[in-house]
Amino acid sequence: MSITSSISPVELRRAIRAGEFSGNTSGYSPGFVQGNLCILPSDWAAEFLQFCQSNPKPCPIIGMATRPGERTINNLGEDLDIATDIPAYRVFVDGKLQDEVPQVADIWCDDLVSFVLGCSFSFEEALLADGLEIRNITEGVNVPMFRSNIDCTPAGRFSGKMVVSMRPMLPADAIRAIQICSRFPAVHGAPVHFGNPEMLGITDLAKPDFGDAVTINDNEVPVFWACGVTPQVAIEQAKPPLCITHSPGCMLVTDRRNSQLAVL
Amino acid sequence: MSITSSISPVELRRAIRAGEFSGNTSGYSPGFVQGNLCILPSDWAAEFLQFCQSNPKPCPIIGMATRPGERTINNLGEDLDIATDIPAYRVFVDGKLQDEVPQVADIWCDDLVSFVLGCSFSFEEALLADGLEIRNITEGVNVPMFRSNIDCTPAGRFSGKMVVSMRPMLPADAIRAIQICSRFPAVHGAPVHFGNPEMLGITDLAKPDFGDAVTINDNEVPVFWACGVTPQVAIEQAKPPLCITHSPGCMLVTDRRNSQLAVL
Repeated sequence: MSITSSISPVELRRAIRAGEFSGNTSGYSPGFVQGNLCILPSDWAAEFLQFCQSNPKPCPIIGMATRPGERTINNLGEDLDIATDIPAYRVFVDGKLQDEVPQVADIWCDDLVSFVLGCSFSFEEALLADGLEIRNITEGVNVPMFRSNIDCTPAGRFSGKMVVSMRPMLPADAIRAIQICSRFPAVHGAPVHFGNPEMLGITDLAKPDFGDAVTINDNEVPVFWACGVTPQVAIEQAKPPLCITHSPGCMLVTDRRNSQLAVL
Repeated sequence: MSITSSISPVELRRAIRAGEFSGNTSGYSPGFVQGNLCILPSDWAAEFLQFCQSNPKPCPIIGMATRPGERTINNLGEDLDIATDIPAYRVFVDGKLQDEVPQVADIWCDDLVSFVLGCSFSFEEALLADGLEIRNITEGVNVPMFRSNIDCTPAGRFSGKMVVSMRPMLPADAIRAIQICSRFPAVHGAPVHFGNPEMLGITDLAKPDFGDAVTINDNEVPVFWACGVTPQVAIEQAKPPLCITHSPGCMLVTDRRNSQLAVL
C-alpha cells in the first residue's frame, strides 16, 4: 500500500507491523496522539507507575496495560499490538542500551508491563495551529533537551533529575504558549521555566544534553517544558534487568485525537 | 456605624454616601469586584465605548449605564448611586484635572454616561489566594505603572499608548500567574509581556510614570499587565469638555464577586 502522511493511525500501525514503514512517525496521522513507550518487568512496574504519578509533568501516563503480558492498551487503539506496531524499539539490559530492533514480539514474555506516556508532539501541534513558530520544527532538527537541576520525586528504585526541552519564543508568544499548553496536562502541560537557564543549572544552551541546538533570536527567551526523556534517565539509573522503549522519534501512533487530551 | 474591612459592598456604598467613609477601598469587602469609573458626556460615550471594545485588555467594561443620566448600573449593585457611592471623584475639564470631590451629585446632569471598568484588585486577589507574592502589596505601595510603546487601537477622538502595570516574579510564579489571570479577561486578563522592559519602550523600572517603584529581587523578571490607567491617558489626550473618574485607589465597590468574573 502507499503510505502518505494523512494515513489513519490503525493503517499506519498495520503498515509498521507488516514492515512497510520504519521511519520517524513525526508528521504522520496529524491530529492524533503519539506516545512514548516504556515496557518493564512486572516487579518494576508498580514503582514506575508511582514514579510517573508523582512526576506528572515529565511522565504523563496516557495508557497502561491492564495486566502483565498484555500487548494491547485499552482505549489507545483498535487492533493495536504494542510489540510490533512501533517503527523501532530500543532494548535496555541493566540500564544499558543493548539493541535497536523493528519489533519485540520475539523477546516478548508474559511478565512485561507496557506504559504509554504523552509526548510533546501533541502540544506542538496545538501551538502551530495557533500560529506560533516552533524553532526546532522550522529548523528541521530535534528539540534541544537538557538535564536540569530539578529533582524528580523518587519512587522506589526510580529517581533522577528532570530533563527539560527548550523552545525559544518572544515573550508575548511564550505567554500564549503557556495558555495553550495549560490545556494539555497529559502532554507535559505548561512550561516549568522561562528565561535564565542557570536557574535550572543549565550553563550552555548551545550544548544540549539530548537533541540539537536551535537558533535563539534577539529578544527571544528560552522556554522550558518538562520532557519525556526524564523517565528514560530514571530507568538508566534504576538499571532494571530489561526495559524496552521506542527509539527517539519512532512513536506509538494512537487512535486518540490530540484535542481529546485538552482538559478545557 | 462601625466600618470594618468585612463590611458588605452595599453597606460600604451607603457609608460612603453618608460621608462616613472617605479613604481607599483596597482591602474592603474582600471577594467583591472593585471597578474603575469613567463618566463622559453622551456625545463622547459611543466613541469611548468603541475604544474600550477595541482595547479590551486595558479597558475591560464590566458595566455601563443603559442611558444618559442614569445613576445606577445594572447588575453591579443594589441601591447603587454612581454619583455619590465612591469615596473620591476627579473632575477633568478639557482633559485637565480641575477638582477632587467626595460626590458629583451637585454637578450631575442628564447628559452624562457612566462606565465601570475592571481593575487589577480582582486578579491580585486570585494571585494572593494561590499563594503568590505581589510585591506592591508586600511593600505597601501603589503598583508601578509605565507608559508603553504599544499603540491602542484608536476609536474616534480616543487614542494613545497602552499603560502597563508591573509586578516582579520568579519565572515559575509568572507562569502560574499567567494561568490564573487568563481566567479573568474582564480584569485585564493574562500579562502582555515579561522580561526585557525595553521591548515595551520602558527604560528605567525604578522610575514608573505612575505609582511607586518596587524591589526586584535576584532571578525575578518584571511581568507586565495592561493597566486601567490606559483609558485615563486616552481621555487626557481626547480632551472632552467634562470627564469624571474615581480618584486612584478610591474605587466603586460592586456586589459582583471576583470569582463570577472567571470565564473558566
